[in-house]
Amino acid sequence: MAREDGRSPGQIRPVTITRDWLAHAEGSVLVEFGGTKVLCAATVQDSVPRWRRGSGLGWITAEYAMLPRSTNTRTDRESVRGKIGGRTHEISRLIGRSLRACVDYKALGENSIVLDCDVLQADGGTRTAAITGAYVALADAIGWMRKRKMCSGDPLVNSVAAVSVGIVGTTPLLDLCYTEDVAAETDMNVVMTGTGEFVEVQGTAEGVPFDRSTLDALLDLAATGCAELTRLQREALS
Amino acid sequence: MAREDGRSPGQIRPVTITRDWLAHAEGSVLVEFGGTKVLCAATVQDSVPRWRRGSGLGWITAEYAMLPRSTNTRTDRESVRGKIGGRTHEISRLIGRSLRACVDYKALGENSIVLDCDVLQADGGTRTAAITGAYVALADAIGWMRKRKMCSGDPLVNSVAAVSVGIVGTTPLLDLCYTEDVAAETDMNVVMTGTGEFVEVQGTAEGVPFDRSTLDALLDLAATGCAELTRLQREALS
Amino acid sequence: MAREDGRSPGQIRPVTITRDWLAHAEGSVLVEFGGTKVLCAATVQDSVPRWRRGSGLGWITAEYAMLPRSTNTRTDRESVRGKIGGRTHEISRLIGRSLRACVDYKALGENSIVLDCDVLQADGGTRTAAITGAYVALADAIGWMRKRKMCSGDPLVNSVAAVSVGIVGTTPLLDLCYTEDVAAETDMNVVMTGTGEFVEVQGTAEGVPFDRSTLDALLDLAATGCAELTRLQREALS
Amino acid sequence: MAREDGRSPGQIRPVTITRDWLAHAEGSVLVEFGGTKVLCAATVQDSVPRWRRGSGLGWITAEYAMLPRSTNTRTDRESVRGKIGGRTHEISRLIGRSLRACVDYKALGENSIVLDCDVLQADGGTRTAAITGAYVALADAIGWMRKRKMCSGDPLVNSVAAVSVGIVGTTPLLDLCYTEDVAAETDMNVVMTGTGEFVEVQGTAEGVPFDRSTLDALLDLAATGCAELTRLQREALS
Amino acid sequence: MAREDGRSPGQIRPVTITRDWLAHAEGSVLVEFGGTKVLCAATVQDSVPRWRRGSGLGWITAEYAMLPRSTNTRTDRESVRGKIGGRTHEISRLIGRSLRACVDYKALGENSIVLDCDVLQADGGTRTAAITGAYVALADAIGWMRKRKMCSGDPLVNSVAAVSVGIVGTTPLLDLCYTEDVAAETDMNVVMTGTGEFVEVQGTAEGVPFDRSTLDALLDLAATGCAELTRLQREALS
Amino acid sequence: MAREDGRSPGQIRPVTITRDWLAHAEGSVLVEFGGTKVLCAATVQDSVPRWRRGSGLGWITAEYAMLPRSTNTRTDRESVRGKIGGRTHEISRLIGRSLRACVDYKALGENSIVLDCDVLQADGGTRTAAITGAYVALADAIGWMRKRKMCSGDPLVNSVAAVSVGIVGTTPLLDLCYTEDVAAETDMNVVMTGTGEFVEVQGTAEGVPFDRSTLDALLDLAATGCAELTRLQREALS
Repeated sequence: MAREDGRSPGQIRPVTITRDWLAHAEGSVLVEFGGTKVLCAATVQDSVPRWRRGSGLGWITAEYAMLPRSTNTRTDRESVRGKIGGRTHEISRLIGRSLRACVDYKALGENSIVLDCDVLQADGGTRTAAITGAYVALADAIGWMRKRKMCSGDPLVNSVAAVSVGIVGTTPLLDLCYTEDVAAETDMNVVMTGTGEFVEVQGTAEGVPFDRSTLDALLDLAATGCAELTRLQREALS
Repeated sequence: MAREDGRSPGQIRPVTITRDWLAHAEGSVLVEFGGTKVLCAATVQDSVPRWRRGSGLGWITAEYAMLPRSTNTRTDRESVRGKIGGRTHEISRLIGRSLRACVDYKALGENSIVLDCDVLQADGGTRTAAITGAYVALADAIGWMRKRKMCSGDPLVNSVAAVSVGIVGTTPLLDLCYTEDVAAETDMNVVMTGTGEFVEVQGTAEGVPFDRSTLDALLDLAATGCAELTRLQREALS
Repeated sequence: MAREDGRSPGQIRPVTITRDWLAHAEGSVLVEFGGTKVLCAATVQDSVPRWRRGSGLGWITAEYAMLPRSTNTRTDRESVRGKIGGRTHEISRLIGRSLRACVDYKALGENSIVLDCDVLQADGGTRTAAITGAYVALADAIGWMRKRKMCSGDPLVNSVAAVSVGIVGTTPLLDLCYTEDVAAETDMNVVMTGTGEFVEVQGTAEGVPFDRSTLDALLDLAATGCAELTRLQREALS
Repeated sequence: MAREDGRSPGQIRPVTITRDWLAHAEGSVLVEFGGTKVLCAATVQDSVPRWRRGSGLGWITAEYAMLPRSTNTRTDRESVRGKIGGRTHEISRLIGRSLRACVDYKALGENSIVLDCDVLQADGGTRTAAITGAYVALADAIGWMRKRKMCSGDPLVNSVAAVSVGIVGTTPLLDLCYTEDVAAETDMNVVMTGTGEFVEVQGTAEGVPFDRSTLDALLDLAATGCAELTRLQREALS
Repeated sequence: MAREDGRSPGQIRPVTITRDWLAHAEGSVLVEFGGTKVLCAATVQDSVPRWRRGSGLGWITAEYAMLPRSTNTRTDRESVRGKIGGRTHEISRLIGRSLRACVDYKALGENSIVLDCDVLQADGGTRTAAITGAYVALADAIGWMRKRKMCSGDPLVNSVAAVSVGIVGTTPLLDLCYTEDVAAETDMNVVMTGTGEFVEVQGTAEGVPFDRSTLDALLDLAATGCAELTRLQREALS
Repeated sequence: MAREDGRSPGQIRPVTITRDWLAHAEGSVLVEFGGTKVLCAATVQDSVPRWRRGSGLGWITAEYAMLPRSTNTRTDRESVRGKIGGRTHEISRLIGRSLRACVDYKALGENSIVLDCDVLQADGGTRTAAITGAYVALADAIGWMRKRKMCSGDPLVNSVAAVSVGIVGTTPLLDLCYTEDVAAETDMNVVMTGTGEFVEVQGTAEGVPFDRSTLDALLDLAATGCAELTRLQREALS
């Protein structure tokens, strides 16, 4: 099966990671996975949520949103509807959990970092692009804190990247674009550390349920994708 | 490592499935996984959401909620707070997706079934108990429809059950109770069909990221758990 | 006029009061008035609302809600609609006021008790069943506090029970089930203490306005109903 | 016990009913019970709520609200808080139910009348003043409809008035002002027709529960109050 | 072009300013610009918003709202809709900004004054009537504070009045009533101090864009209108 | 007085207008006024709001929002707070009104264009940049429609641009950046057509009220700024 943009099944899209895209944020990245563009901004706050005060530990949180015309047809604003949808909630929580996996809360001290991931243009894989870009923004924000001696040692204990995989027809594909995502029988998002462990595995049978060997093939593909993204993150940060 | 209720690592809790717990619903089940009690009610509606009208296809949706004192300390009502939290959204969506995997929309015709899963008492695994119980309520609601000739053929093409698995210390455990869930390094919810395929795999490293062999061990454990639950569902329905 | 369940006009439905239905709550009761089932949970909190701090006095509050499929046709969740309806507000306030009538705030000290009354199945009289059951849950929660020396003396100075009465056709009936409630010209909810005084009287002419002698007949009927419920509460608590 | 404004226990406050206070509404009344001022506006709509369409029957509904500085200290706007409080809901529903008792839905045809009761200044008894004034606005709106032949026959089959009664110390008092209302042990709102039947009786023991003879004394007092208000309504409308 | 109420183009409507319309507020005014009636209540609070605490400076804020039947056809309540509309927000902010222009925050001390402007009847120019009336209520509230020695010196350093102007056909008109406002090509609201400076100028081309000479003509007209309103405010306060 | 970026008082910041910044929108522009970056997306919809149906006329509307970290310190999302703030409402309405001034609704037919203006980075003048950029996105969207014969003739009858002016110290300045905006005594936003007429004039005395000659000086300055922006818009579109 040929992919519409000519990639091989195990190939990710062209990825660009542009640091310092915003003037005000302590870390900011415009990350592009092909046609998907996500603006990731890291904000440092010298406080933690109420339930964590006095613990000596920091906190990382994330908020994901899509601009109304990032999508093919316009989507109503959640601010106008007056409530946040289930999908937005779910992805915000996923990004937060993923990034918390590479941070040492003790070294961070009682500080918080908020990662705002706003999708400017969507073409599949917005959540995995967001995680991959937000990691770089987070690294910059922690660098900013370390310069100001806001933390002791290095709070960044690993790196984190994410990629989608799926079965289209019967072929396992890496890094699905929008039309592939819509056509996929099975869709999986995998978040991995720079050292190759899993942080999050979320696989869903959109159509036909899948067996163990399919699952294994998808996990293999995801591992190569995350390794490649890890390499690109390192390159961007060096 | 001994489990606090004396179970072996690969053993599920005592499960009871009580059908027809409610007088009004077309299908209703009180499902218990040890101390976790979830009331699952299936409502048949002879219409589908607007975006699906005229397609000839049916729809399945689910709503999950916890009673305020189902938990150890009281949780504020989402109706009083005026909005639904991210966790509630996420689980409602998971239950809906899981049950849609065992239904033939065409046979269902332009009818909907809503699965309300209300947690009366929580002791870990509320979402997996909800899926497992909701399947039985769904089966009863579809039986109710077939008696009334509301659908053509059998819309129920498979069964669905779910279980949690996790690593506590270094031991993989099946069907975590609340204290085990809190202690787990890695936590995974697995939804499988009665014929042993995966519908949904959601694994999260709460603490240390996990490697592939750990993931494999958890998937093996989940498969035995889901098989046992499938047996109990069949027993309850016969 | 014969009642559909064979009761005489002045007879209440079979009532069951099951204590300790929940594992976590300080007091919990599943109360059944015929087909009406309400789960009442009492939560003890060692604080009072802001406006009452420093007064040395306690507080009692209540929240009432119906599960979506407790009713004949499914009712949308108030959490999903994002606001609480007028009827829910009204009944929550009624339950709170009723239970406050049997409590000595000074003896309670600066503690609060929240009564959550969730209707699992509705067949008329849900608010009166809720009050009657919540009293027993409250008594258990106060017993729990006294064991822990959280209050001085006995904060429970009386008991409280409630019943509905109404005119169907021209006959005054006690404890209306759903079909009777719908048919009633006049509908009254009466809350009384264990010693026979009124706490709340709420009578409404749904159809034709009613005269004083009708009102008197309904109050007489309510008094016998509350006396019988008081007896059943005592029995359950002994 | 002397009342602060010199009234006898069974005397209502000076009442003024000013018709046509607003230019646009089909009926409008500024009603004053002593220091309590409520602006009642009746709006005629040539449609009914969805659930009533095609029935040939009309509908009456009401909305009650207080201006932020109608009270002694400023109350936040419910529009700013983003939700309607329980008390507002409860009173709006009471006013609607009360006025529906004097209307023949069939004669009204498929038209609605909305009664907006806005408290400009509060000094106790705002809900009873609102009902008493809204009746006159309703009568004017129905007159307006009859002139335009929007209804067949006279939809107004009776009149409705309301008054508060209560026990302060041990004395039953009629038409409580704010300071009396705060001091009352028992507080009752009674809605009666112009022909002396009850439409609504709502009695609450704010302090000590009350016995049957107290209830009887309050009902007697309310009956004289409503009769006097009925006389004033007739006078205003003639 | 003749105006429907016989006014000359440069003439304002009959204006009445009734002080002390409410019993509880520290300052209150019923202001009428022809058929437009706005109730303005000033509330003194001995605190300031969080962001201003410890500054030694006071604050002035305003809230504008319309009663549902102040308008020709009934408008839904913003409290019922659960959110405040853009127009309400905009006018509330305009009133607050305008009144802040005549207050010395330092002399006011750490106190706030809230101006509630509720439109009882609308016939064009509700925002300008609100500003003009609210100034008088503010002056009374500040007088009330000065009697109680709550402020040092006189916080009132100027007066503020507002009027609308517009082009109907080709004629510049002062103080537009509703039908003129609807017909206007250009519509401008001007807020000026008692000493003739501008506080706010808001001009909008509803139809054809306007040139500089039209703008100049409208500003001239507004200046005469505000001067006349300033005279009436002084008269009312003396 | 020297400006911090070395501009003369009557000079606008470097402006860039990048068309087709987004892949999906019918028109899209990234507009930059110095450090202010606004992404303007135009969406064509083949329908109009309910109140305009059947009129044969089109409609233009706009929504403005700021990304949380577009500002110096992070601003909470309005979607998370559950409501839109007054400032957002006000600016969205201003943008919509401004763009409607250059459109012939009849030529547009019963189609709508929504202009989404999302501030990616804020450094003063976000609303004027939004209007100036949105006009170009609108022109592209109308071009897109004309290619598809969705409208008759040219719906674009003029162009629209906007700029801020203000008094800092005693100097009138054109196109204020953030620090100048904060320091300004008087602040004015002016929207003008490409042919030099006014569409909207909004001047506010943030500090000391201003006299007519100041107003005149600011209007002169704004006219030169809008003329320059009109030239840049034409250049971008050619």
